[in-house]
Amino acid sequence: MKAGSLFRGWAVGIVGALLAVSAAFAQSDPLPSWNDSANKQAILAFVEAVTAEGGADYVAPQDRIATFDNDGTLWVEHPMYTQLAFALDRVKALAPEHPDWKNTPPFKAVLDNDMEALGKAGQKGLMEIVAATHAGMSTDDFEKIVAEWLTSAKHPKFDKPYTELVYQPMLELMDYLRANGFKTFIVSGGGIEFMRPWTEKVYGIPSEQVVGSSIVTEFKVVDGIPKLMRTPKVGFIDDKAGKPIGILTHIGKRPIAAFGNSDGDLQMIQYTTTGPGRRLGMLVHHDDSEREYAYDRNTHFGLLDKALDAAPVEGWHIISMKDDWKRIFPD
Amino acid sequence: MKAGSLFRGWAVGIVGALLAVSAAFAQSDPLPSWNDSANKQAILAFVEAVTAEGGADYVAPQDRIATFDNDGTLWVEHPMYTQLAFALDRVKALAPEHPDWKNTPPFKAVLDNDMEALGKAGQKGLMEIVAATHAGMSTDDFEKIVAEWLTSAKHPKFDKPYTELVYQPMLELMDYLRANGFKTFIVSGGGIEFMRPWTEKVYGIPSEQVVGSSIVTEFKVVDGIPKLMRTPKVGFIDDKAGKPIGILTHIGKRPIAAFGNSDGDLQMIQYTTTGPGRRLGMLVHHDDSEREYAYDRNTHFGLLDKALDAAPVEGWHIISMKDDWKRIFPD
Repeated sequence: MKAGSLFRGWAVGIVGALLAVSAAFAQSDPLPSWNDSANKQAILAFVEAVTAEGGADYVAPQDRIATFDNDGTLWVEHPMYTQLAFALDRVKALAPEHPDWKNTPPFKAVLDNDMEALGKAGQKGLMEIVAATHAGMSTDDFEKIVAEWLTSAKHPKFDKPYTELVYQPMLELMDYLRANGFKTFIVSGGGIEFMRPWTEKVYGIPSEQVVGSSIVTEFKVVDGIPKLMRTPKVGFIDDKAGKPIGILTHIGKRPIAAFGNSDGDLQMIQYTTTGPGRRLGMLVHHDDSEREYAYDRNTHFGLLDKALDAAPVEGWHIISMKDDWKRIFPD
Repeated sequence: MKAGSLFRGWAVGIVGALLAVSAAFAQSDPLPSWNDSANKQAILAFVEAVTAEGGADYVAPQDRIATFDNDGTLWVEHPMYTQLAFALDRVKALAPEHPDWKNTPPFKAVLDNDMEALGKAGQKGLMEIVAATHAGMSTDDFEKIVAEWLTSAKHPKFDKPYTELVYQPMLELMDYLRANGFKTFIVSGGGIEFMRPWTEKVYGIPSEQVVGSSIVTEFKVVDGIPKLMRTPKVGFIDDKAGKPIGILTHIGKRPIAAFGNSDGDLQMIQYTTTGPGRRLGMLVHHDDSEREYAYDRNTHFGLLDKALDAAPVEGWHIISMKDDWKRIFPD
């Protein structure tokens, strides 16, 4: 044997070994941002069980439905829901066209940055703000407004665009599920048309797999051009008991895995985990004041109280941001 | 050269030629049940245009959305909508539990097979029948009732199960679109939960790609078991101007191709074909009394009047069942 071919044999051997190690590593760690905790093992074991053909827990690909809440489960929801930050920014942007807002609650509170007065305006005040900022335009125009806002707005604590403040471990989890034949859906209390402009790019979730709250939209033909016009009337609220209804309407199948972070997700997870066969329910617990936020039973955004009590009883897993996640955001 | 290897060479040549012919044939005729008409050419040209990378009409795969009406577009809707046949059969099946129905309109009309009296009961009568046959059970139970009925019920003219009375040319069209990266959706005035139990098997359309009318469903936890209970209250009517709204709610994107057969599809096709870029709108015209039915401007089921007038003005294609389709149903 010549030295040349010996060297080639050795090189091929090394490359082969590297590839094998790399493949094994890729196979063994689809969730690199997760610490090797019980929760990570629970996810891996669940996926292995429902995808093992011939196994007792096997689920056919078309029934591998996983649903994810958005605010606080896939992206940051403090110091306020991103959609609320959008609405307040829109009030400020539209204020020059509405000089009366300077003296009219709840708009005055927004323009004065008076969060206490805004809080006191309650649900009624919030609906007035939604009507002024989310209605009266076509869906195409609203989509443009949202997309444009997202390119310029920055989170007050992290000083980054909101679409970069998504949780890297959850992105990996969604990729991992999809690689195993799952269909991933967002099921959020947030506005469906507020999410759709960016979910495909940021989460890999296309518009038809986004479930959310909505206002009533009307079909109108103006000068021969059909438009979908957004009205200020509330349509569907995709929160709490609304989430299983939203799942029925949009998906038509009971999920086998559901991920949330608040009491708004309780019924979705309950509906998911009480179905027959193997199921997975998980709650993201915001317990990381250093890298993100810490809150649960006492907050205006993402209240986690009843669901926190239900979790151990129902066998739902509680994900600790602090302990389960190596990092929070993408690089 | 030995005779054996000559023979093998010849055989390989023949097999290769056959494969090439077969591949060419498969490539050149994705719609074998369509006559080689202008409509078939319009479909082929449209798909070629929107899938040609770098072409002026190119559409990215995630935006290749095609919507299909169901009744009269994908399956038979005469002598009455299949869902109405289901409702009438259910009244008869449930009658022993409701002895008063024998003397109570509109149930009396159903039990007497008195279609004239039933017609006179109008919308109100129909809603009473829907309430009695489509509500008061869980969605899981309703799904079972529908699936069971479909295995036994037969069409009065063709004496076949309704799920076999789907249009073979349209099955080929949906397959062809999907093979070219399209997502296919049903957008029907029919009940969403009446369609979902069978659309995946019959059309290859999963439950989350079915848009339809719905009644209000409620989430209830009974003895710790969460259920989705069907109420008799009308929720959403996915017909006429409702179709673009249903498309917005479920898909969140404007289709680039839409297929219907009645005035109920007018707004869907209008919304589809007035978008920017290349678009395709088509109406199935029932003009084949011999192999199926012939009706348009004068029928209770599948009225085609305004849309028939709009088609030439708007550039929508009218598919003639008689002239465009080699056969109507699968073998």
